[in-house]
Amino acid sequence: MHFKLHERIDMDSDSVGFMPLCEIRLSKEDIGPWLILVPRINDITEVHQLSHKQQVQLIRESSTVSTKLEEVFSPDKINVASLGNIVSQLHIHHVARYTDDIAWPGPIWGNTTGLKRNDKEQQKLIHQIQVSLDETNGFVTQI
Amino acid sequence: MHFKLHERIDMDSDSVGFMPLCEIRLSKEDIGPWLILVPRINDITEVHQLSHKQQVQLIRESSTVSTKLEEVFSPDKINVASLGNIVSQLHIHHVARYTDDIAWPGPIWGNTTGLKRNDKEQQKLIHQIQVSLDETNGFVTQI
Repeated sequence: MHFKLHERIDMDSDSVGFMPLCEIRLSKEDIGPWLILVPRINDITEVHQLSHKQQVQLIRESSTVSTKLEEVFSPDKINVASLGNIVSQLHIHHVARYTDDIAWPGPIWGNTTGLKRNDKEQQKLIHQIQVSLDETNGFVTQI
Repeated sequence: MHFKLHERIDMDSDSVGFMPLCEIRLSKEDIGPWLILVPRINDITEVHQLSHKQQVQLIRESSTVSTKLEEVFSPDKINVASLGNIVSQLHIHHVARYTDDIAWPGPIWGNTTGLKRNDKEQQKLIHQIQVSLDETNGFVTQI
């Protein structure tokens, strides 16, 4: 069956590209770059519901994304989380955090203004991330 | 070098036991069971700083803990997160969340009263988790 991205994730973020397991999306919120990895498997809500092989692939893709966030944006900390209290479709947040960001040291979720990045800045950021991920672990911008 | 657990984690949680990579600890906070996995490696603050082999072991241990939380406590959702904005030593939260808990649907961090479970209830819960984890993936209560 064709993978169906939850409409709320679709609305709140833009596609950056794809790794073998996950679609990588960039939140539209105007804070430190916030990437969301969505395993392209329907009806999964928890990491432990993935097969062992998929879990290994997930941590590989997650680690690649965190490494790139660190290299490109020099955050003070990276927050990685699978929450899903509002949208249960499995998705894993990767947020570049800074000691002077709006929510520090609290979690980002529920502690931002909701202000969105302007589209030009969003597209520029997506391009920057695509360039940094280029071909790493099978990353592609289109499938 | 001997592994040194951060004093704040030591103070805020109790040991449940050990898997090959992580110590498993139970938060003292009186909310849905909240387990914390701490890889026993000094000077690591991010998942992607672990070796690939350690990352694979981490997701295996994390998945085991989530599976047991689900089996034993029937939460509505499990929140898994590596934040570290306050205590940077790498530790991964596994929180059993319920739609009627104090912070739902927000994240648990920063949204609780800080009220601690009484010691008798805490010890009972630790025992229950130890029994459920018994021998799974090399779990032991003492090393």
